[in-house]
Amino acid sequence: MEQVVKHIVLAKFKEGVTEAEIQKLISDYADLRNHIKQIKSFEWGTDVSIENLNQGFTHIFETTFQTLEDRSSYVADPAHVKFGSELLPALEKVIGIDYVPNREP
Amino acid sequence: MEQVVKHIVLAKFKEGVTEAEIQKLISDYADLRNHIKQIKSFEWGTDVSIENLNQGFTHIFETTFQTLEDRSSYVADPAHVKFGSELLPALEKVIGIDYVPNREP
Repeated sequence: MEQVVKHIVLAKFKEGVTEAEIQKLISDYADLRNHIKQIKSFEWGTDVSIENLNQGFTHIFETTFQTLEDRSSYVADPAHVKFGSELLPALEKVIGIDYVPNREP
Repeated sequence: MEQVVKHIVLAKFKEGVTEAEIQKLISDYADLRNHIKQIKSFEWGTDVSIENLNQGFTHIFETTFQTLEDRSSYVADPAHVKFGSELLPALEKVIGIDYVPNREP
């Protein structure tokens, strides 16, 4: 399996943040691909789980990188920092967690 | 992009759960592939994030399915239910969230 680093963000937006504002933030998140060359891929979706374990989180974002160094460059990139300063104030709860996937235990 | 459903589980183990117990649970989680035909892929990893947003979660698991129906069959499968009854008591915190990835906003 090709080495990859996955950066997962779970978000719950504050009450009062409109659908239009959420869509704008998702567009801006996706647009980071056009500004930060270390991003290999970006995807997102809304919760469709049925186990009642989502703890209120409604949106999932996954950004992938080739290496941990690329991930670190992304975190420090001014375009990411600027986006974070737009996204975080709109969120009631957020989790950001990264991992290098293994297929075997 | 081929249609896929991603099932993400974030876990924080209780204090006192040993590394050996954690490894056994990860092995049992991976072994579900051999019992539940709807599982397309399974991967896992430990947190390597640097943004201080992991909220204490330490382990990430991603199981993928072809369809929401396959995901639902997995959730109801006796092998999954049995595994859940082993995993959940070992956890201090857990999030389970599913999504159908989009690449475009």
